[in-house]
Amino acid sequence: MSATAQVDRPRPDSGTRGNANVGRLVVEGQDRPGIVSAVSAVLTGQGANILSLDQYSSGASAGFFFQRTVFDLPDFAARRPALESALAAQIGDELGLAFRVHQVCKPKRVAIFASRADHCVLDLLWRHRRGELDIDVVCVISNHPDLADDVRQFSVPYLHVPVGSDKRSAEQEHLKLLRGNVDLVVLARYMQILSEEFLDEVGVPVINIHHSFLPAFIGAAPYKKAKERGVKLVGATAHYVTKDLDEGPIIEQDVVRVTHAETAAELAQHGADVERLVLARAVKWHCEDRVIRHGNQTVVFSR
Amino acid sequence: MSATAQVDRPRPDSGTRGNANVGRLVVEGQDRPGIVSAVSAVLTGQGANILSLDQYSSGASAGFFFQRTVFDLPDFAARRPALESALAAQIGDELGLAFRVHQVCKPKRVAIFASRADHCVLDLLWRHRRGELDIDVVCVISNHPDLADDVRQFSVPYLHVPVGSDKRSAEQEHLKLLRGNVDLVVLARYMQILSEEFLDEVGVPVINIHHSFLPAFIGAAPYKKAKERGVKLVGATAHYVTKDLDEGPIIEQDVVRVTHAETAAELAQHGADVERLVLARAVKWHCEDRVIRHGNQTVVFSR
Amino acid sequence: MSATAQVDRPRPDSGTRGNANVGRLVVEGQDRPGIVSAVSAVLTGQGANILSLDQYSSGASAGFFFQRTVFDLPDFAARRPALESALAAQIGDELGLAFRVHQVCKPKRVAIFASRADHCVLDLLWRHRRGELDIDVVCVISNHPDLADDVRQFSVPYLHVPVGSDKRSAEQEHLKLLRGNVDLVVLARYMQILSEEFLDEVGVPVINIHHSFLPAFIGAAPYKKAKERGVKLVGATAHYVTKDLDEGPIIEQDVVRVTHAETAAELAQHGADVERLVLARAVKWHCEDRVIRHGNQTVVFSR
Amino acid sequence: MSATAQVDRPRPDSGTRGNANVGRLVVEGQDRPGIVSAVSAVLTGQGANILSLDQYSSGASAGFFFQRTVFDLPDFAARRPALESALAAQIGDELGLAFRVHQVCKPKRVAIFASRADHCVLDLLWRHRRGELDIDVVCVISNHPDLADDVRQFSVPYLHVPVGSDKRSAEQEHLKLLRGNVDLVVLARYMQILSEEFLDEVGVPVINIHHSFLPAFIGAAPYKKAKERGVKLVGATAHYVTKDLDEGPIIEQDVVRVTHAETAAELAQHGADVERLVLARAVKWHCEDRVIRHGNQTVVFSR
Repeated sequence: MSATAQVDRPRPDSGTRGNANVGRLVVEGQDRPGIVSAVSAVLTGQGANILSLDQYSSGASAGFFFQRTVFDLPDFAARRPALESALAAQIGDELGLAFRVHQVCKPKRVAIFASRADHCVLDLLWRHRRGELDIDVVCVISNHPDLADDVRQFSVPYLHVPVGSDKRSAEQEHLKLLRGNVDLVVLARYMQILSEEFLDEVGVPVINIHHSFLPAFIGAAPYKKAKERGVKLVGATAHYVTKDLDEGPIIEQDVVRVTHAETAAELAQHGADVERLVLARAVKWHCEDRVIRHGNQTVVFSR
Repeated sequence: MSATAQVDRPRPDSGTRGNANVGRLVVEGQDRPGIVSAVSAVLTGQGANILSLDQYSSGASAGFFFQRTVFDLPDFAARRPALESALAAQIGDELGLAFRVHQVCKPKRVAIFASRADHCVLDLLWRHRRGELDIDVVCVISNHPDLADDVRQFSVPYLHVPVGSDKRSAEQEHLKLLRGNVDLVVLARYMQILSEEFLDEVGVPVINIHHSFLPAFIGAAPYKKAKERGVKLVGATAHYVTKDLDEGPIIEQDVVRVTHAETAAELAQHGADVERLVLARAVKWHCEDRVIRHGNQTVVFSR
Repeated sequence: MSATAQVDRPRPDSGTRGNANVGRLVVEGQDRPGIVSAVSAVLTGQGANILSLDQYSSGASAGFFFQRTVFDLPDFAARRPALESALAAQIGDELGLAFRVHQVCKPKRVAIFASRADHCVLDLLWRHRRGELDIDVVCVISNHPDLADDVRQFSVPYLHVPVGSDKRSAEQEHLKLLRGNVDLVVLARYMQILSEEFLDEVGVPVINIHHSFLPAFIGAAPYKKAKERGVKLVGATAHYVTKDLDEGPIIEQDVVRVTHAETAAELAQHGADVERLVLARAVKWHCEDRVIRHGNQTVVFSR
Repeated sequence: MSATAQVDRPRPDSGTRGNANVGRLVVEGQDRPGIVSAVSAVLTGQGANILSLDQYSSGASAGFFFQRTVFDLPDFAARRPALESALAAQIGDELGLAFRVHQVCKPKRVAIFASRADHCVLDLLWRHRRGELDIDVVCVISNHPDLADDVRQFSVPYLHVPVGSDKRSAEQEHLKLLRGNVDLVVLARYMQILSEEFLDEVGVPVINIHHSFLPAFIGAAPYKKAKERGVKLVGATAHYVTKDLDEGPIIEQDVVRVTHAETAAELAQHGADVERLVLARAVKWHCEDRVIRHGNQTVVFSR
């Protein structure tokens, strides 16, 4: 109840979303003197104006360098090839750095995998609808039919792909749906382990939400384990999926306080609130090119 | 992605929900020696077994006493009158305390008021559906038609009561819907101020979620004010509504960290996550008889 | 800078500290109907008035029961034997419960073990001096001489007991100092593992602060491991020491947010703030008889 | 108790502290295209290598621009004049921006004001001693003699300047001690209001810690007011002091959860833990040139 009917309406971008002339440049590699200046010089030389810049070096000597730059480049589409050539020559060849350019008006295409638990997938769809997540949700894929109505309420296709004893055939169906169509797969409490082959073949990053504060309680039933260990906080961890279960690079984590008086099921309830929040942050940051993987760690320019 | 498909399923009660023989007793009043024993003796004398007990005294001398007791009373319905008589005699008359008895299997009937913002109302409905909130949602009443489809998806009636210049006639319609039908009104970002007359006439508690950490930023547009003041945290406050705007007894509050880099709209986005969480806690605690008003403060037995 | 020189002065007790007529009763055991009433009846029958009561049952059936009661008993010292006899008969023999009675005016006697890190030990001494901890600090024992001046500044004896290759002889010296003289040993970042023999012989609880969010990062160098794993939060855990390293019952935990940009040393700095806070809470709650061990878990009546 | 005696030792700098060739450049002013490139070009042109860079623009159009750059400039002292000339010409005159250069090896000189409460001042001195704060503590000034021994234990001069009815004469004494000798004044729970004249004459920033979550509970006795209002969190706010009491630009804030069961004195105890943490962060960030004032707000490049 507020004094007037006028509400603060979320305007979830800061002015760049959907702007065809705005790009993001991510640069990473072995650190050495002069990188910031060199990148800045290339962008300026190509007619781009730097809107914002985040940078991090992992150490004074022999460290790694990471930079995310948002820039405005009039007539972006036409001038992108020249920009990329210049970057390849002066940043790639000369300084030995990797780089990638993204056009902000092309949101990442995302497939969400879910099972029966609804809290993570519905929260992502709801945030997308209200404009918090600048993504295209291509589809929701589930090994159960339960969430079909809830998902379709958001006008998103729901594809039921049962996973039986022949897991590989389900994965083949997944790959047929995904290949070429998505830039990211999000496991929103999908209760199946992806095979190493799938991860190799899908060709895009896969983000998972694990329902514990990793590395505590790896594997199944973490809230039950948390209750047995008698912890006073439970948490959730969003991470990139690698072939080692629950061992991939961590993007985001958070926790909530619990007491002796709560059952494992109540821990799971509190944890669900953390899971959906942590996963939403991780997806948002990934899709805004704010997350850079480095070995088994991440650099997150989250603001 | 977990190692098995077996998920920790929330079992949201701790064994008492829906049990027709379980009751809650709330006692409050001027503190004096022997209250815990006296209450315990009455319950035992009437055949009840105490399952859990929370108690608080506000001061060593001349303080106030508050107690919440959950008890099992076989054949509850038949024996309730005798229990209440005994309490009236020994707790009421003799010790000068107020008390109320609730049968746990009768959930509180709740009407939710909303306007156009969906995050609080949908979160309450979703928590109710998954079994977190032991309430009956009688209806959602809104001064706008926008959320009808989303609400009805949860099989809850949506009633559009426009509020024009003649606010009093809308309130009369509200009262017709509510009187005798609900035990609690929840304002889930309802952007209208309730009149003092309405509060007098509705005859049940009204809980509001204010989108700031009260007493900071009373009134309209708190996120805009928060941005202007340059705060580093934004918050939300659930409180009972009184005739003094945003001044009622606080039930629950929480905050989230923000930075200089976020716009007022982005503060509102972060704040929305806190609002829905804080409101859900307040409603849950109220409906489990865990909140006792005392002057302009509350005693909250939150565990 | 406040508008007046009048400061809110901490008065760290709530009226009972040092009161020779106030006692605490802790009851635990197999749950069964009627315990709360029975305890209440014994106390009342012995002339005690219940000041506050915390109670928890671990399950509806076949669960465990835990209760902490603070009571006023005029002429406490003289009437304590009769009270304990009545409890033994009616709570012990009849209901099969364990119980213990503490007189509030007799603070627990505490020995603090430290090594070279000063943050935990100095914080405990400082909190003790300002009246936050109702304990007697008997001495600080260290395997290094470094902190002698800082500790003695608080008028607390500092005993330097070097630990060489013959660890057992150091432990014998510890036991000579401790036996009969202390009610609690606190390891305030003491960088030595206590032997199983020592734990058996010391005969009082031992609380340790581990510099990670257990069960993550058990053992040595947790901040280094946390950095390598790329976690986004670091934490600390206060627990009772058992013969299994870092596996004892957890009393309290907390965390603090970190980023990719922080070194292991900076994680250690942030962690130190959490360590001293978590350890102080655990010691305070233990010494106020708010912590009950149950298997490898704890029940903490923290308010 | 850890598995080995080897401890993670805080090495509180990230390699630049005390390095005579490392500088920090802060640039601010009306935003316009090309600033990042221009600053970068000047630094490179003068032989400097950018080690890290934080940048923020307050809006897409007509916004403000803020940048903090850490750079390595061989032979810093000799080349500083040329660098500053180039910046004045190309950043100042041409782009209309303000800038300042700091040499990292010259820590800011700080005077701490205290009254009788010890928690904030001792925590700052302790953090300084362990190497967390890269500052010179010139002296502690107090209107009470109480803390003399504690402060001098840290080898810091303690100056007792009583403040009587003639406040102006005490302030004159303060100014004599401070003028030319310090770069920052920190009010560590100093319970006197500084006059507008003093603030004008002292000529350096003044940071205060207020014991509430501003703008809630401005003025005296905030914990008492918090208790009366029945809030569920209490907090602390570090801010620059301006002539308007408790209204200056906020640098940092944090909160801690409290319950109905805690007295105002206990709120003050919990709050003290937050106060010392929040003040330490604010002082650290200010002294690392991470805080830029902008109107009544701050930009904080805290990581």
